[in-house]
Amino acid sequence: MAECNNGSGQGKLYVVGTGPGAKKHMTLAACAALEEADIIVGYQTYLDLIPEFLAGKEVVASQMMKEVDRSQKALELVAGGKKVAMVSGGDPGIYAMAGLVFEMAREHELSIDIEVIPGIAALNACAARLGAPLMHDFCAISLSDLLTPAALIEKRLEAAASADFVMVIYNPKSKRRTELIEKAREITLKYRSADTPVGIVTAATRDNEKVVLSTLDKFTGQEINMQSCVIIGNSKTFAWQDLLVTPRGYADKYRLKKD
Amino acid sequence: MAECNNGSGQGKLYVVGTGPGAKKHMTLAACAALEEADIIVGYQTYLDLIPEFLAGKEVVASQMMKEVDRSQKALELVAGGKKVAMVSGGDPGIYAMAGLVFEMAREHELSIDIEVIPGIAALNACAARLGAPLMHDFCAISLSDLLTPAALIEKRLEAAASADFVMVIYNPKSKRRTELIEKAREITLKYRSADTPVGIVTAATRDNEKVVLSTLDKFTGQEINMQSCVIIGNSKTFAWQDLLVTPRGYADKYRLKKD
Repeated sequence: MAECNNGSGQGKLYVVGTGPGAKKHMTLAACAALEEADIIVGYQTYLDLIPEFLAGKEVVASQMMKEVDRSQKALELVAGGKKVAMVSGGDPGIYAMAGLVFEMAREHELSIDIEVIPGIAALNACAARLGAPLMHDFCAISLSDLLTPAALIEKRLEAAASADFVMVIYNPKSKRRTELIEKAREITLKYRSADTPVGIVTAATRDNEKVVLSTLDKFTGQEINMQSCVIIGNSKTFAWQDLLVTPRGYADKYRLKKD
Repeated sequence: MAECNNGSGQGKLYVVGTGPGAKKHMTLAACAALEEADIIVGYQTYLDLIPEFLAGKEVVASQMMKEVDRSQKALELVAGGKKVAMVSGGDPGIYAMAGLVFEMAREHELSIDIEVIPGIAALNACAARLGAPLMHDFCAISLSDLLTPAALIEKRLEAAASADFVMVIYNPKSKRRTELIEKAREITLKYRSADTPVGIVTAATRDNEKVVLSTLDKFTGQEINMQSCVIIGNSKTFAWQDLLVTPRGYADKYRLKKD
């Protein structure tokens, strides 16, 4: 939605969040941008989730890890006067494609019209699937050490754990990187009890979705992968039925209502 | 989307996120839940944003600060077999209505079907309006001290600032409470430079929307109110044109592309 100056008055780049997976969690604005675009650019896995928007469009698909190529291609097409929708799973504004697009537009001194269409991010979707874990202050921390030093990740885990933030862990574990989630567990156990509720949501809202409730001492024994988001409760979070709920602090108020 | 056991097999409560304001940022699932519901329950200000969904429905409107009454009413209606949509601005799962509903259902030992429909939260919408400030680890911190001790809020500000999280400040300033945002500024200045970019988005996506870019030393001189969300950049965040961008760490990669 932020707009750069539009040099040509013609081309436009929509950076579109398509949400966690199921089409029903796309916004009306995201649907409209995909419909309006001449060309749709995206990572093949995300494009596979929205086949109905691709019919009759030029589609530029790319593989994972090709974010830079994809952004460059999208910017070139827009500079050439095209309306382009660059698809991002979740919310392009949260650990996703929006930043790279602006970085590259700045680097190449491009003056084009860019609009970010926010989407339901993994944290929104996973929280909904777990009940209501994010009713109070929380941190989002990615354990991916490809672009961030592990020491900084650990520092952030320590800060978040020590100040009783609910913690939303993105990219918790890859085939190669299996130790940082164990480290996150160890660090958090210094500050929170072993039975602190932890939720693991894998592939939220997709066909292969899996929701697991566990506890801080045991959760790393569960299946966790790069499609998972792990939410560690704060000191007040409780498990109820198959849910994770962090109270906002209304207890005294609603107890009055009970006769 | 989390479901409690459904005792009656009939009534159902949708806790529906209607997004930041403009209808276009509602999801298809939110629209469908409002259409399916027999009764729509909500705070009047949020209902005013979605008049097209209220036609022909029973509507139970309430004033602000009546969250407990509203939840109790919704739960009673569902227990009586109705399909009820309880409307929450933004995302009901982020500082909003979902938690209270589950807390009250537990307290009253209700066995009803509850589904949380996630929405575009203030943090998603404000980030999109500012460009891409949330490309790296971030914290959401509410400065409301009605239900949280100010000492805990300050502890969290300190932890977030010290570990270089991007900081999303909810409820930054009310008519009564004007000091905590100054405190947030002071605490963050201990760890970040005076020219750290700060974005202030007020009434995101609504008719009276206002987006302001400032810096850490000066931002509290801007208009900030309870409709505002303040985003404080981390040590890498830069301002470009009217945007706030936090790099994810691709710089070395995309520089290779420049000839």
